Amino acid sequence: MSFLNNTKIAVIGGGSWATALIKILCEQQHIQIRWWLRNGNDIEHIRKFHHNPSYLSDVYLSPKKVKVFEKTKEAVKGADFVILAVPAAFVQESLQDLNESHLRGKRVVSAIKGMIPEENILVTDWISEKYKVPLNDIAVIAGPCHAEEVALEKQSYLTISSTDAGCAEDFSKLMTCRFVTAHPLADLYGVEYAAVMKNIIALACGITHGLGNGDNFQAVMVSNAMQEIRHFVTALDPRERQLSTSAYLGDLLVTAYSQFSRNRLFGNMIGRGYSVKAAQLEMKMIAEGYYATKSIFELNKKLHVELPITTAVYRILYQEESPSLVIEELKKVLK
Amino acid sequence: MSFLNNTKIAVIGGGSWATALIKILCEQQHIQIRWWLRNGNDIEHIRKFHHNPSYLSDVYLSPKKVKVFEKTKEAVKGADFVILAVPAAFVQESLQDLNESHLRGKRVVSAIKGMIPEENILVTDWISEKYKVPLNDIAVIAGPCHAEEVALEKQSYLTISSTDAGCAEDFSKLMTCRFVTAHPLADLYGVEYAAVMKNIIALACGITHGLGNGDNFQAVMVSNAMQEIRHFVTALDPRERQLSTSAYLGDLLVTAYSQFSRNRLFGNMIGRGYSVKAAQLEMKMIAEGYYATKSIFELNKKLHVELPITTAVYRILYQEESPSLVIEELKKVLK
Repeated sequence: MSFLNNTKIAVIGGGSWATALIKILCEQQHIQIRWWLRNGNDIEHIRKFHHNPSYLSDVYLSPKKVKVFEKTKEAVKGADFVILAVPAAFVQESLQDLNESHLRGKRVVSAIKGMIPEENILVTDWISEKYKVPLNDIAVIAGPCHAEEVALEKQSYLTISSTDAGCAEDFSKLMTCRFVTAHPLADLYGVEYAAVMKNIIALACGITHGLGNGDNFQAVMVSNAMQEIRHFVTALDPRERQLSTSAYLGDLLVTAYSQFSRNRLFGNMIGRGYSVKAAQLEMKMIAEGYYATKSIFELNKKLHVELPITTAVYRILYQEESPSLVIEELKKVLK
Repeated sequence: MSFLNNTKIAVIGGGSWATALIKILCEQQHIQIRWWLRNGNDIEHIRKFHHNPSYLSDVYLSPKKVKVFEKTKEAVKGADFVILAVPAAFVQESLQDLNESHLRGKRVVSAIKGMIPEENILVTDWISEKYKVPLNDIAVIAGPCHAEEVALEKQSYLTISSTDAGCAEDFSKLMTCRFVTAHPLADLYGVEYAAVMKNIIALACGITHGLGNGDNFQAVMVSNAMQEIRHFVTALDPRERQLSTSAYLGDLLVTAYSQFSRNRLFGNMIGRGYSVKAAQLEMKMIAEGYYATKSIFELNKKLHVELPITTAVYRILYQEESPSLVIEELKKVLK
């Protein structure tokens, strides 16, 4: 029996990205998915109708492959891999019933593109510290991937990044199917920080668009963002990287150019004159980039990297400075 | 009197990009623009009404600064700079009345993003060879810049690239105004080849979009395109380059993500099943990327760089292979 057969995978999270990942995994012939969702109504619905009523509700979730659980402890039982797919702001709360022993011997894969709020550390570092999961048993999923397009089976590419080549390769095989190609990559921190920062950039693109800037300026913002990501990631973990590949640039593009990105939408409202509070109320949820901005800004107090775009977004969101004045200043340092 | 005062600039070409460049130049207080257009009716109209009736017709062209000429010989007379802004396919024809002596002592700036058809050489190399203009007196204009957004005075950035730092700096100053910031860069070939290749990529993005692929795939195409451009440009002119900056990546983004790009539109029609001939008839003009594909493909016969996207487009446009089959093959080599 090959490695791919009968792999048990726990998925923590009930949103669109979790649902899309489950759809991809269901393409494997023999697989057992143990799915934890917070929402009891959704659990009932999925058990009865095999569709997630709240996200990507067209996607059929085969009951032969997918079992749904109310408790995270139950979901992770016997799992080879545990996939984390909740917003970064909720990861601590979602995993609160788990301790070291529940994750022992398991590989943990983060599909979260954010940092632990207040603590300003990466989700993978937090998992490794709090649950004593060895870093070699941890991976992240990156790559340009709207969940909605996965639901439509549009060809997509993912990158699985880990400090351990075997871990990245094994999980890449699980994520490769008819409509998804996953490649392993050995750059855990680079990929994860780039994924966090891209949400800040998408927010910045939203702000500048809301202020009336056009496509010319957006292209310049994204190009400058690539330098900002490069400087920051290099300061944290210097090594050779091709940042203009799918895992970094691709991920940034799909977020920054998407009309559906929550970060871009949030930024757009700020650019049009909404206060942060009003935009958050209107959206009923907080964009990941809002937290990411603070985390990266705080983290950078030790690193002193020049981060003009992140700093501009920080000043707008956390220091209540005028978006138009801050962006006018930013324009002077962009190239 | 400073350098910027009373500079005389000839502009060759009557399209939207030429008109946008003239609008930018008109922001200089003391400048003389000597404009050659092919179309006699347009010339008459501009002389009478100070607007180009065919392109960006909202833009006011001050008769104090802009003089229009029927003959290129007249337009270039006494000019310090000669800007070329016609499609690459027409540059030979447009300049046919000029010889070495007409360009002697003048700096030539190419705003053309294409190669001389059949000869497969860059416009700047052709100018330098045919008219004996020293390479140090030649520059190219790059950067993400829809002419339409320049007309609306939306903040834009340009890069002026030349082998001569002084030439790039002088021209950057002329192109910097209220709504445009221009930076000099010392990478003539890199910038020019990247600009040529981006039209092929935009065409490829159009084809894959026409075939029904989504944003996830587009982001992967653009990321892979960056590797393709890097390999090709490095083979031709190896040096350190930050390709993810505005001059290269930004330029690619604004073309590949624009719904208005002629190259993307042309590709889209091919992807939807139009033949090359039918798409050309429908569009009434030929997209630059069509020629660029052939030039880069031919040039690469000597270089043997792996160019999967360019090769795919070549097979579709010039070997009449099925777009869907070729793109299915391409999907296997993308990452």
